[in-house]
Amino acid sequence: MDIHPFMKDRPMRLAGLDWPDESVGLAGEPDGDVVVHAVCNALLTAADLGDLGTHFDTATPEWEGASPTLLLTETAHLVRSAGFEVGNVSVQLIGERPKLGPRRQEAQKVLAAALGAPVFLGAATPEGLGFAGRGDGLMAIANALLLELPGYSR
Amino acid sequence: MDIHPFMKDRPMRLAGLDWPDESVGLAGEPDGDVVVHAVCNALLTAADLGDLGTHFDTATPEWEGASPTLLLTETAHLVRSAGFEVGNVSVQLIGERPKLGPRRQEAQKVLAAALGAPVFLGAATPEGLGFAGRGDGLMAIANALLLELPGYSR
Amino acid sequence: MDIHPFMKDRPMRLAGLDWPDESVGLAGEPDGDVVVHAVCNALLTAADLGDLGTHFDTATPEWEGASPTLLLTETAHLVRSAGFEVGNVSVQLIGERPKLGPRRQEAQKVLAAALGAPVFLGAATPEGLGFAGRGDGLMAIANALLLELPGYSR
Ligand SMILES: [Zn+2]
Ligand SMILES: [Zn+2]
Ligand SMILES: [Zn+2]
Repeated sequence: MDIHPFMKDRPMRLAGLDWPDESVGLAGEPDGDVVVHAVCNALLTAADLGDLGTHFDTATPEWEGASPTLLLTETAHLVRSAGFEVGNVSVQLIGERPKLGPRRQEAQKVLAAALGAPVFLGAATPEGLGFAGRGDGLMAIANALLLELPGYSR
Repeated sequence: MDIHPFMKDRPMRLAGLDWPDESVGLAGEPDGDVVVHAVCNALLTAADLGDLGTHFDTATPEWEGASPTLLLTETAHLVRSAGFEVGNVSVQLIGERPKLGPRRQEAQKVLAAALGAPVFLGAATPEGLGFAGRGDGLMAIANALLLELPGYSR
Repeated sequence: MDIHPFMKDRPMRLAGLDWPDESVGLAGEPDGDVVVHAVCNALLTAADLGDLGTHFDTATPEWEGASPTLLLTETAHLVRSAGFEVGNVSVQLIGERPKLGPRRQEAQKVLAAALGAPVFLGAATPEGLGFAGRGDGLMAIANALLLELPGYSR
């Protein structure tokens, strides 16, 4: 699960895409993309590698202006270096907007290309309930299926 | 994950069952059954078929008075038509009431019959925290395990 | 998923560890350890055995002062007696504190020893959002992978 509040005067970046029609972005480094972060954390935890904070300091200037999916590509590299093949990842966004439906397949393609494995993306509206329903921020929840490659000692 | 607020003057339908002793129902179409919706969305996302909103317009009159599990049966049909076998589904309800425990096995049977595969159902109380703890609504969270049938091109 | 509010004048027990530097504990029996409870409930639901409340009355005096992981060991025994091998469990804590990162591997070792199978532990901060962000309590979310042993009739 990953959670970030909305933040004014910031471009919205979500699910590896830019959303120029949105009036707010997400707080968090490098861009608060809850979908990418949830996927990365699911992958890292499944590979027993901790989480994003263990490996990346995304508050540093090098990450400013980085590609939206760089974090995912780097995470995939860590997971494979630890001896795992990525089977697939499923991830769901919880929030009222942006509406993911019309761009779901576009986002899936971008995320799958960065990961090198299928990504299945869904969305649910919180129906006015909780912090996401009040429009304070977004949440995403992901599961990763890894396959152990033979010949690695763990 | 699926979320719906409570709604007065509406019968409670949950986990494919009717709950005549409950004084409120759930908002949402056709009946706000968060357990059924969470299971359907998990199945559809895992099969790369989007979500309930992609396939069903449950606000139309045809869905009024439909069987509580029709949505699940129709979803199972879509998933199998796309070349998947359903291994099993697990789903957890988060809420203070209704109490699922005493009817857990009854609900599992109804859901499994509609899906044509095992459904494992659990429940947790939010201990007074969050929207579910304040009694504003219910949440359910599901995972679906699909098996790819040979001979389909995806 | 498991949820417990913070409680004053109580030692913090979390992820099978004691946290003597924390000024509050968790409400709930025997100790409100959301990580252990989420893992147990994931295991029990996957094995079609209901949940913790079905099997354990942890409000009784026998559970007072019990080992933090006794619940997990007992749950593992139930799951194996029902004919399953535990593949692995992943679990994520959602909360601002205590900070799990520095003790992640220690906690994983304690939990895995009690379960007799690998446990992968992660954490995410709610970034000030929701009940966990307001510091009202903690939440954990777990997935269990079970393997059916041959020769059991289910
Ligand atoms: Zn994040
Ligand atoms: Zn719904
Ligand atoms: Zn608990």
